[in-house]
Amino acid sequence: MNKVRVEAFSDGVFAIAITLLVLTIAEPTNYRELSHQLWDRWPSLAAYVVTFVVIGIMWLNHHSIFGYLERIDRPFVYLNQLLLLTVVLLPYPTGVLGEALRRGEGTRAAAAFYAVVMAVNAFCWTAVWLYASSGRRLLHSSFPEDQRRSATLGFSSGTVVYTLAIGLAFVNAYALLAFHAAMAVYYAVDPISRRAARASG
Amino acid sequence: MNKVRVEAFSDGVFAIAITLLVLTIAEPTNYRELSHQLWDRWPSLAAYVVTFVVIGIMWLNHHSIFGYLERIDRPFVYLNQLLLLTVVLLPYPTGVLGEALRRGEGTRAAAAFYAVVMAVNAFCWTAVWLYASSGRRLLHSSFPEDQRRSATLGFSSGTVVYTLAIGLAFVNAYALLAFHAAMAVYYAVDPISRRAARASG
Amino acid sequence: MNKVRVEAFSDGVFAIAITLLVLTIAEPTNYRELSHQLWDRWPSLAAYVVTFVVIGIMWLNHHSIFGYLERIDRPFVYLNQLLLLTVVLLPYPTGVLGEALRRGEGTRAAAAFYAVVMAVNAFCWTAVWLYASSGRRLLHSSFPEDQRRSATLGFSSGTVVYTLAIGLAFVNAYALLAFHAAMAVYYAVDPISRRAARASG
Amino acid sequence: MNKVRVEAFSDGVFAIAITLLVLTIAEPTNYRELSHQLWDRWPSLAAYVVTFVVIGIMWLNHHSIFGYLERIDRPFVYLNQLLLLTVVLLPYPTGVLGEALRRGEGTRAAAAFYAVVMAVNAFCWTAVWLYASSGRRLLHSSFPEDQRRSATLGFSSGTVVYTLAIGLAFVNAYALLAFHAAMAVYYAVDPISRRAARASG
Repeated sequence: MNKVRVEAFSDGVFAIAITLLVLTIAEPTNYRELSHQLWDRWPSLAAYVVTFVVIGIMWLNHHSIFGYLERIDRPFVYLNQLLLLTVVLLPYPTGVLGEALRRGEGTRAAAAFYAVVMAVNAFCWTAVWLYASSGRRLLHSSFPEDQRRSATLGFSSGTVVYTLAIGLAFVNAYALLAFHAAMAVYYAVDPISRRAARASG
Repeated sequence: MNKVRVEAFSDGVFAIAITLLVLTIAEPTNYRELSHQLWDRWPSLAAYVVTFVVIGIMWLNHHSIFGYLERIDRPFVYLNQLLLLTVVLLPYPTGVLGEALRRGEGTRAAAAFYAVVMAVNAFCWTAVWLYASSGRRLLHSSFPEDQRRSATLGFSSGTVVYTLAIGLAFVNAYALLAFHAAMAVYYAVDPISRRAARASG
Repeated sequence: MNKVRVEAFSDGVFAIAITLLVLTIAEPTNYRELSHQLWDRWPSLAAYVVTFVVIGIMWLNHHSIFGYLERIDRPFVYLNQLLLLTVVLLPYPTGVLGEALRRGEGTRAAAAFYAVVMAVNAFCWTAVWLYASSGRRLLHSSFPEDQRRSATLGFSSGTVVYTLAIGLAFVNAYALLAFHAAMAVYYAVDPISRRAARASG
Repeated sequence: MNKVRVEAFSDGVFAIAITLLVLTIAEPTNYRELSHQLWDRWPSLAAYVVTFVVIGIMWLNHHSIFGYLERIDRPFVYLNQLLLLTVVLLPYPTGVLGEALRRGEGTRAAAAFYAVVMAVNAFCWTAVWLYASSGRRLLHSSFPEDQRRSATLGFSSGTVVYTLAIGLAFVNAYALLAFHAAMAVYYAVDPISRRAARASG
């Protein structure tokens, strides 16, 4: 299996999924009241921004993970495809959530749907990492053992947190969006490398 | 003809086609009953997942085949474009099948259409392989002769099986989806390499 | 200016434009009569196939031209962007032509529009070639002079032919589609290399 | 951080955003009056052309900037993602502006929206440049100091100009489009390199 090629394919999918997000903002329907209709769409813009940031950070962390691997094998590629399947889906719940918030109807269902897709995505990330790292299956020999353990803990607890966040959807849809933005920012600082830096510090 | 460039172009087309699949899930129309409408769309999600897996496996096998080639020529590139033409079309029957299943109307026609496009795609794969391998036209000299013969048998019988599967569309649309998912999984283990491994085992 | 990067960007645009063609086939509206509605869409499928083939061949010839260049400069890149502007537009007239043929309304206007966009595209190809080749501005020194002259003749006459073909749109829209398919096949054999081969034969 | 990879991802996003612009031209609704409806859509075509040129030039200048950098770091990548967030959004105001002009309704709101998104984009460009260049943080040591200063001046004044241009939206939407086309042409000659060439001349 060619690592470079799988990475390039994944990059393409991330880039397309992130760009398709623009299609999640509903076209105006009444141009006489255009300024009103555009203001009205700010929840769609908020959902667009949050999911854009989330996918952008995912793309970065995808590279971090691939950078730690010495090689990849077929099962890893299938888990990676499964991960991409959930990434590609993201524009759909994003569009639904933005539209529900704009209409003020179905916001709980929309937020729960968004939260579930994100939680499934978190499970896929954990599966990808556990497969690659358990028994150091695909890891570079230079990857520190304590960093492996803390990353496993990070991914596993992330899965729990994203699952619990589904409950937040029933409290407030904006709080859910803020939560996902905050989590993305948290992951942006790359827990794996940060911990590694601390360990070696 | 530049093999790397044709492969990169094909990769791009596979990545875009697989990502456009998200557009096959119809937007909700009534946000008051959003949770109901989202549950309602599970056949679209099922069709999305199956076609995603199918295209994902196709992408992998496309690389396997290119890996066996020493060079490519213009006719091969045209056959490859023909193959891509059928891959790019896949989101359309996928969307139609998901929507027909959701509405419970036109499921046979939708399933038959999906099955026909998949069968035409199988013919294109066989054409690509036969052109590349007959008389070992484009194959690496190291590619084992017995593996060539078994791959030719595999592609040809695949064409027959996919053609026969059109009949399944008239029995049950979900059975057809399950069949295509199962075939993708079957191809996922890469019959060519598997047989080669067995032969050298 | 980096030739590789401009080529990669152009490849991406060609790949995306060719894949977006699938969106030109109108979704069915009545699933009770789905098989009827799908048959009905064959003109859209025909337009899809023709434009797919046209863009596929364009992509190949784009590479041929870049292969003859020793270097590129800013004005060449702008002409290349102008060319891409017309390529990216192609899904629009393709969708309109397919839909007009399906409805049996507005076929002349749709065909004329399709023909005009294709003619503008042909002008852009000629501009790209003339800029690159006149005075051998960007050509490899090994590129034969007689081949340069015959390619210039080929591109210029192509522009005339595509302009005249606009008239065909007023005769019969299917004849126009057939004409564009035939021209693509004609260009598929790469007049430039063919003539060069003949010259050196 | 891998400069090549971030550049490739950005290239992909630019290529997809520029190609999605074709979706901003509204489908005809009445095929009996198709030629009339197509003429009617010329403002959408104008908006398509202007934004295509704008994104095309942005892509070129993105490469120029990356070419001046010796390395990149995480904060730079985040600013780059923020820049891409505004680029990906561009098809939306483009479609709205074209449609408002076609209908002759909401043109001020549409033009103001377009101008605001462009101004936000200009701020992001300035942020990217200031982060990379202040204290010569990421610049190649060979990048001339006077060129750095003039580029900083260029980006900063660009931000002011794009912000002031929002006012133009309330005067005339076509003037706004012409302004953005003119600015793109101005940037096309790459102020940075031009000034550098002059400095060294």
